[in-house]
Amino acid sequence: MWLYVVLAALAWALGWLVRDHRTLPSVKDKHVFITGCDSGFGNLLARRLSRRGYRVLAACLTPHGAESLQRSCGGHLRTTLLDVTRSDSIRRAGEWVRAEVGEKGLFGLVNNAGVANPIGPTEWMDIEDYRRVMAVNTFGAIEVTLQLLPLLKRARGRVVNTSSVLGRISANGGGYCMSKYCVEAFSDSLRRDMYHFGVKVSIVEPGFFKTAVTNLEVLEASLQQLWERLAPETRLSYGEDFFQKCGPEGAEVHHDPDV
Amino acid sequence: MWLYVVLAALAWALGWLVRDHRTLPSVKDKHVFITGCDSGFGNLLARRLSRRGYRVLAACLTPHGAESLQRSCGGHLRTTLLDVTRSDSIRRAGEWVRAEVGEKGLFGLVNNAGVANPIGPTEWMDIEDYRRVMAVNTFGAIEVTLQLLPLLKRARGRVVNTSSVLGRISANGGGYCMSKYCVEAFSDSLRRDMYHFGVKVSIVEPGFFKTAVTNLEVLEASLQQLWERLAPETRLSYGEDFFQKCGPEGAEVHHDPDV
Repeated sequence: MWLYVVLAALAWALGWLVRDHRTLPSVKDKHVFITGCDSGFGNLLARRLSRRGYRVLAACLTPHGAESLQRSCGGHLRTTLLDVTRSDSIRRAGEWVRAEVGEKGLFGLVNNAGVANPIGPTEWMDIEDYRRVMAVNTFGAIEVTLQLLPLLKRARGRVVNTSSVLGRISANGGGYCMSKYCVEAFSDSLRRDMYHFGVKVSIVEPGFFKTAVTNLEVLEASLQQLWERLAPETRLSYGEDFFQKCGPEGAEVHHDPDV
Repeated sequence: MWLYVVLAALAWALGWLVRDHRTLPSVKDKHVFITGCDSGFGNLLARRLSRRGYRVLAACLTPHGAESLQRSCGGHLRTTLLDVTRSDSIRRAGEWVRAEVGEKGLFGLVNNAGVANPIGPTEWMDIEDYRRVMAVNTFGAIEVTLQLLPLLKRARGRVVNTSSVLGRISANGGGYCMSKYCVEAFSDSLRRDMYHFGVKVSIVEPGFFKTAVTNLEVLEASLQQLWERLAPETRLSYGEDFFQKCGPEGAEVHHDPDV
């Protein structure tokens, strides 16, 4: 009995190993469009694919991000500016991609642009906090995808959407988890709808990686802002020292009187 | 061994039976605010709770819906107009609820208002199709909840959010599945965030019930609209008879030439 289990496990591992070692014969004419290349995963992926010889089309939110990426990478990488919350910006980037890829179409699209804050207790949020995060992580990814689908179909390409472990477990209040749940839902229906056309759809579900999204100082500053704008009676229902107890600095402040 | 399993199952069933037969000693002073009471689940729930003696605060989208519900129910039910996609409408409804419930607070909130269409292949959608469904099902439910949380905390009340089986399985393209994934994510973080304050949060996940949301004629008309606005090259990639093959009428039309 155990022998069969071990053999099956080995065969499976071997299968994966073989599968993951298959490489494309040539990537010199493969275009990959990546959003959110100013920093984090997008920036790293753009650099890595560029080193491997892909034709990287890197979209950055800021001119500074685009310039510094362009400077550090060479020939095969090209940058454009893209704000995924604005339809005109997405349309312009789509035209640029179309001109770059020509008749071959688009080999890959990586929807990576994302924001996280504010994250915190639901009661501390207002509806605009949800809208802002959803505008980037969800509607941005969808609108970019819809814009580029014709080019992806032409190349029988692939879409890689950045979800999160928080796309399966809603661990915090705020728009982030919701926005990643949406990425899961959108990707799964897109996957089935595009299967017939040879377009593949994958998701990546990172955990707690050290990117701008998980920067603790930024998270804490955002929580502080939420706390300060709360109505006095709401703050009172949590207790005036609730926020100080949570924060790392606050913990010290809170300890002092006890000493 | 089997005896223990059977005994455990019996004990469990008995526990549920007892739990589900517990009733409140009096519901005469319990206010329940329900959105989307023009038709479907919301309408049925408003009538039923009103018959049982609850003080039902029923929000309808249309004056016609409100009047006909008010006419068919009696004393304990009161109606108001609410468009959950408009912040001013939600604020006004919130003020009305506050005046109705007084110092007792709000016993229950049922976020039921929802729309489904368009549902169809992802490529047939534009971004506004997603936004419109999300505006009602997701942002509407969140904004109504945030508005009423202080009253719910006062009464140590409960929130019931209408999700769907499509909040777990993204079976179709379009905004509906996504919007229900969001309801799942929002409800779960809300549940944890409100636990300390004695506010309970539940979800309902209906399957294919016969409400306006699952009306096949409406679904088909919406698909027809999407198909007709598609770019010719996109339509061609599906084949000109794709849509006719799917629709019940189209199927007949398609059979004729084969006869």
